Amino acid sequence: MIVYFDFLCPFAWRGLELMALIGERPRLVHYSLVQGNHAENPERRNPTWLLARQPLGEGSEFQQASLRAFMASHAARRQGEELAFAFALHLFRLRHVDGLKLDDPETAREAARRAGLDLERFELALQDETGLRQELATDLEEAAHLGVFGTPTFVLGSGDAAYFRFAHLPETRDDAERLWGTYVEVLSNPVRIETIKRPR
Amino acid sequence: MIVYFDFLCPFAWRGLELMALIGERPRLVHYSLVQGNHAENPERRNPTWLLARQPLGEGSEFQQASLRAFMASHAARRQGEELAFAFALHLFRLRHVDGLKLDDPETAREAARRAGLDLERFELALQDETGLRQELATDLEEAAHLGVFGTPTFVLGSGDAAYFRFAHLPETRDDAERLWGTYVEVLSNPVRIETIKRPR
Repeated sequence: MIVYFDFLCPFAWRGLELMALIGERPRLVHYSLVQGNHAENPERRNPTWLLARQPLGEGSEFQQASLRAFMASHAARRQGEELAFAFALHLFRLRHVDGLKLDDPETAREAARRAGLDLERFELALQDETGLRQELATDLEEAAHLGVFGTPTFVLGSGDAAYFRFAHLPETRDDAERLWGTYVEVLSNPVRIETIKRPR
Repeated sequence: MIVYFDFLCPFAWRGLELMALIGERPRLVHYSLVQGNHAENPERRNPTWLLARQPLGEGSEFQQASLRAFMASHAARRQGEELAFAFALHLFRLRHVDGLKLDDPETAREAARRAGLDLERFELALQDETGLRQELATDLEEAAHLGVFGTPTFVLGSGDAAYFRFAHLPETRDDAERLWGTYVEVLSNPVRIETIKRPR
């Protein structure tokens, strides 16, 4: 299974909490809402404005926050998928529960501590800016290729994929399994359900 | 239960077939895609360009087709909800299965015949253009008030509502019940699922 996500997005935060609750460890791939919704990218599948090429410390607060968070997430990934998942979950919580700022490098350091990363290796990896940008570019290309437009987007083993947005965290593991079962059923029904969306 | 629909829309056609398969008879309310997506209506909830006020025989093919179909549907509604449902289902089939044109008055007459309407009463009702336009305006106001943006949109007894788009008809009554059960479960889950949408 794969999940496309952006640290800016509270729905993606809930999506990762759902994975934690049901014990799933999807492959993590970044998708950038700032890049996807950028005015210079009318075709989401063929972006010309690329987040991975933007300077740190420039652009909107969202742009700076997401670029810094993605690069930290790639630095964490070098310590393996399990620790990368823990890092992403803690970085999400620091942003969406504790309200810390993603454009402050200290926020990622705190997530690394909470996730149990080797902090020295993490700091060293963060210095490889060129490598991290290349890894981010690869993630964002993969997301654009699939046509991701929002986060979280989950891809099942069957290849079925959808944006999955819910407003509250499930309270128990049973609730989480029921919720995930409903999502899987929506994507598995032979009539090919394309959209269920409440009016806002 | 309520369904908001537009005869132009193949997904709304499937939605009504689903209702027929599971034996539900929702209250029928028209929503106009032409009005909802009109360039002069940036705020979908407060439209200023109103389909019910447009002349017959003017505007795009879609505009003419939908206005004529909605007025015929209101004429059929004067013979009761059950016959109105049958009329809507047959008009949908004539358009989306047989490929007939909705802007041809003969198409609605054929739907009236197949639905078993009293044809004389139907023709008489069709002549009450002012009354039919008023009834259509009331439907479209109700849809705008709810914030409907696509069809079919189903509203459950709980008040939960969503646009529900699927690509193929369920083949059996069991398949139809499974599909409807999934839709109801999505809207009933306590986490408040807001959107499930495949990338396109």
